[in-house]
Amino acid sequence: MEKLKEILLHDRFAAEAGVELMEVREGYAKARMLVTEKHLNAGGVCQGGALFTLADLAFAAVANSRRQLTLSLNAQITFLSAVARGWVYAEAEEVFSHARVPFIEVRITDEEGRLVAVLTSSGYRKKENLF
Amino acid sequence: MEKLKEILLHDRFAAEAGVELMEVREGYAKARMLVTEKHLNAGGVCQGGALFTLADLAFAAVANSRRQLTLSLNAQITFLSAVARGWVYAEAEEVFSHARVPFIEVRITDEEGRLVAVLTSSGYRKKENLF
Amino acid sequence: MEKLKEILLHDRFAAEAGVELMEVREGYAKARMLVTEKHLNAGGVCQGGALFTLADLAFAAVANSRRQLTLSLNAQITFLSAVARGWVYAEAEEVFSHARVPFIEVRITDEEGRLVAVLTSSGYRKKENLF
Amino acid sequence: MEKLKEILLHDRFAAEAGVELMEVREGYAKARMLVTEKHLNAGGVCQGGALFTLADLAFAAVANSRRQLTLSLNAQITFLSAVARGWVYAEAEEVFSHARVPFIEVRITDEEGRLVAVLTSSGYRKKENLF
Repeated sequence: MEKLKEILLHDRFAAEAGVELMEVREGYAKARMLVTEKHLNAGGVCQGGALFTLADLAFAAVANSRRQLTLSLNAQITFLSAVARGWVYAEAEEVFSHARVPFIEVRITDEEGRLVAVLTSSGYRKKENLF
Repeated sequence: MEKLKEILLHDRFAAEAGVELMEVREGYAKARMLVTEKHLNAGGVCQGGALFTLADLAFAAVANSRRQLTLSLNAQITFLSAVARGWVYAEAEEVFSHARVPFIEVRITDEEGRLVAVLTSSGYRKKENLF
Repeated sequence: MEKLKEILLHDRFAAEAGVELMEVREGYAKARMLVTEKHLNAGGVCQGGALFTLADLAFAAVANSRRQLTLSLNAQITFLSAVARGWVYAEAEEVFSHARVPFIEVRITDEEGRLVAVLTSSGYRKKENLF
Repeated sequence: MEKLKEILLHDRFAAEAGVELMEVREGYAKARMLVTEKHLNAGGVCQGGALFTLADLAFAAVANSRRQLTLSLNAQITFLSAVARGWVYAEAEEVFSHARVPFIEVRITDEEGRLVAVLTSSGYRKKENLF
């Protein structure tokens, strides 16, 4: 798991967005991001792409927690509450483990525990081992 | 439309990701982003969140092209080809115009015209006028 | 709730598919369907449309459990295990309650408790009261 | 293609719903369904599951038009116009052809050409040849 964490530090886009991986174990991961001015869209709230980036890192951590290189095939995100400042947390859980196409759900919450967004994603496992 | 373009320049997250709005008219918009090292994930290809951010700005341009403040309610993105360098273009089209919940499709292509990703999103129009 | 159950008995398509609403309370509903030969597709497993119909009734029960007429705006279904015979159960839960656009998740399981499909759907509440 | 049409006649659930496959060629298919009383939900309009069933058959025709057994991995449907009577048509197009995970879009229209629903689906090709 330490090796996986290290690998995911090389996610440059997530790092620039300020995403930090907090925890990862088989089938579960948690990441966070401090929403600041640079994350806002023209409407003054956190851009959908910033939330997606946070969720995507949490997804990648879970999807790859079984040591087999796994990509996101597609993802659906539903925006539930706008957030303009403060920490947001993404908890990813493997809902269905499958040799080729696992299904993962990520819930994003804010500092008050309010649900900000839900992302579901089907992964696609490659034959390559991750390490 | 010039005013809308100006407003969307205030999308700080999209701007930091290097997204540029190229064109917007009622029901259609085009944006682009130059994929560089900072957009890459741990696998060495453009992060899903970066592509989502590009698509989201194109979505916002189309969704708001009818002068009524419109947010994204949810979005689904399917990743079709990996891209590691060069320009990617997002063309957004309003597939269904609706007073409250318009439906918009965004196709992302690379410099060779290969399809990189498709995003569909349901918008939610607020009562506020945009300007 | 009895009135809501009665109303949903008028879902002709669900009734023909053999869908039965088992339970409904605010924010939760459960339905079931006995998969028989008539539900199968050309591949000999339960057709996606049959599973969708089951999930849709459970969705409708939850979405309307707050007494305001609510439609499905869009839905995403992920197929996880094929099922060819026996009972399948759909449990629907309102993940996010919202005055206009609630978000509901439905999980379909088979007799062994295996996850068959997951559906998520954004509802759209009309101004009309349901009764 | 005649063989594929024959195989799809064995989709019992679609047949009971009145779905007819009109045309299929590599990368394209068209199906139709006459909406009658039996397709309606409690709100008096065509049930989402009925529209999904129609779209699913058109998807299956396109997905399998390349002779390799292909299932739907997941699908997203957006409901745009309610329909209570008359013919609805589903046109399916392979947006992205891929050896393992093709991406297909299905548009459903009514007799007046109004867009009723849009479904997108990622397929999953098995190693088995279809015939």
